[in-house]
Amino acid sequence: MTKEIKIGGIKIGGGNLIRVQSMTNTDTKNIKSTVAQIKRLEKAGCEIIRISIPDKESAEAIKEIKKKINIPVVADIHFDHTLAILSIKNGADKIRINPGNIGSEEKVLEIIKEAKKAKIPVRIGVNAGSLKKDIKYNLQIKSNNETANKMVASLMEHLEFFEKNDFFDIVISLKSADVNETVEAYRLISKVRDYPLHLGITEAGTEKSGLIKSAVGLGILLYEGLGDTIRVSLSAAPEEEIFAAYRILDVAGRRKHGVEIISCPTCARTEIDVIKLAKKIEQKTKYIKIPLKIAIMGCVVNGPGEAKEADIGITGSKNFGVIFKNGKIIKKVPKNKVMKIFEKELENMIKENKR
Amino acid sequence: MTKEIKIGGIKIGGGNLIRVQSMTNTDTKNIKSTVAQIKRLEKAGCEIIRISIPDKESAEAIKEIKKKINIPVVADIHFDHTLAILSIKNGADKIRINPGNIGSEEKVLEIIKEAKKAKIPVRIGVNAGSLKKDIKYNLQIKSNNETANKMVASLMEHLEFFEKNDFFDIVISLKSADVNETVEAYRLISKVRDYPLHLGITEAGTEKSGLIKSAVGLGILLYEGLGDTIRVSLSAAPEEEIFAAYRILDVAGRRKHGVEIISCPTCARTEIDVIKLAKKIEQKTKYIKIPLKIAIMGCVVNGPGEAKEADIGITGSKNFGVIFKNGKIIKKVPKNKVMKIFEKELENMIKENKR
Repeated sequence: MTKEIKIGGIKIGGGNLIRVQSMTNTDTKNIKSTVAQIKRLEKAGCEIIRISIPDKESAEAIKEIKKKINIPVVADIHFDHTLAILSIKNGADKIRINPGNIGSEEKVLEIIKEAKKAKIPVRIGVNAGSLKKDIKYNLQIKSNNETANKMVASLMEHLEFFEKNDFFDIVISLKSADVNETVEAYRLISKVRDYPLHLGITEAGTEKSGLIKSAVGLGILLYEGLGDTIRVSLSAAPEEEIFAAYRILDVAGRRKHGVEIISCPTCARTEIDVIKLAKKIEQKTKYIKIPLKIAIMGCVVNGPGEAKEADIGITGSKNFGVIFKNGKIIKKVPKNKVMKIFEKELENMIKENKR
Repeated sequence: MTKEIKIGGIKIGGGNLIRVQSMTNTDTKNIKSTVAQIKRLEKAGCEIIRISIPDKESAEAIKEIKKKINIPVVADIHFDHTLAILSIKNGADKIRINPGNIGSEEKVLEIIKEAKKAKIPVRIGVNAGSLKKDIKYNLQIKSNNETANKMVASLMEHLEFFEKNDFFDIVISLKSADVNETVEAYRLISKVRDYPLHLGITEAGTEKSGLIKSAVGLGILLYEGLGDTIRVSLSAAPEEEIFAAYRILDVAGRRKHGVEIISCPTCARTEIDVIKLAKKIEQKTKYIKIPLKIAIMGCVVNGPGEAKEADIGITGSKNFGVIFKNGKIIKKVPKNKVMKIFEKELENMIKENKR
């Protein structure tokens, strides 16, 4: 069980819901486009938004941005501690730094003091690719993975500095572009500290291969019970990160949210256009937040038998389409009408569930 | 360590490479389109192909199909044992059955006899959705997951029947559309039997959500060291299953194959069009089989530092694009030319690697 931390109005850690984050990729200073992107992300289900603060104007923009959005803002700081301080003064709900690139302990201490005054947490984010060269910390427990050991040792140096200065309002991240390094690093830190863990695979890649890397890496950790907040990093529109994050949480058994589609891969037995229908249903139900299982099965080998757990489903047979609810057949309809009738049934079910 | 089994010319289990499978979704009887699809799958890297055999004509088609392709054929049989026997006589390299839906032990025995005569293995595939109602087998070791226990108990009944009849040329699969059930079932069987494991999440879903489910489920098992052959089931073109399978194997640390793209998710700091470039590079290198790490980074915070493990990479900076190889900057070029020059460098690197 991790420690509970508050980010704006949202609690993470300590058994709270695992929260989904993303990051804007607009020019932060362009308040209009940044706010518009955050609004789209809120609609998709984003619960905490990180914004990079490369300069003074960006730090000052936080004030205006915060007025127009509904979720907490995390200021992402590199190199310059004065930007962290300015972000806090402009209302950032959390600061994310890698203390290793801030320049000196004195400068980190200035951030700590300001965060303490504002009562906001700091995420200490150590990345495999930007480790200090002279890590002195001696780990008591070690992993087989040398990079993971270095990441955790580096983090421990930072943690002890924060703790020595009486600051415990901390979230941790230990990201690498390598799944094994990431998994080993998070496993290791969870044995020695109880700060909430923000999970992510850094520079994971494109919409497709990045999705796979994040799903494997975060999936392993979440399935083990680790993780209090997650971000799926993708070189894609940030909305895609939100969809992926919820799917990963759902299939790893950590948070039910939205539609799970169960659909067969199709084969020579297939009697309805599963691929087209599944894609259409997925698109249509993308932003639904209630948990719902929808099955789309090509033939009688798979459906409804293999989809009896589904709330609603459709299966093809030689002469007609079959619609089923909770494992029971409710309708047999002509094949050319099956898609329309199924969509109508689904809409009704969603309406009922919303009530 | 699992037992070694031969499927046509390919060895699986016993420490051999984890092999990648897919399944045709053409009408098997249409030899021309089935062969064309298998050829496309071979090009994408498919190493074993499964074909569903819903009727006599499909079983007979195996003979002609096999003449025109280069990879072993697995005949997928449901309900009718005579189709299994006919498939074996027509040259199938392996039979996949769920003995629970074949009708009787006598009929299963006929398949066993024919497979023994032809010296081909049988995959016993138990699916969570089509379990027998009267499972009598008492498991010695149990999981917390009741469905997983039932799946394994059902499989054990079948296994003991095969073993009693002196047949050990067996591959196992235990698929469910639920990640937890699948993971628990495979973990359990691996404690009591050493037959090679074919891994898959059944009815995983669409190209996107199915990818996530398969990556989480197979990722957990592969990372633990389980699995001898895999199939990623997607309601999508089967070529997509191959790409996904290799990426999952790669990131789970089980088999290096093809290009790994490391690319940042972009933010306000981004100085080059990472999303567009990453997508283009991924598409261009999709069928390359040599392992290669390519980094595409938006700014100096991430690249080249965070991508120093990459074989080749590109990063944006304020005034120019930077190309790096093995962590060292090799070229600084004007931004408007950086994509072209990078692609050329990449092409040269691939040519060198092929030599």
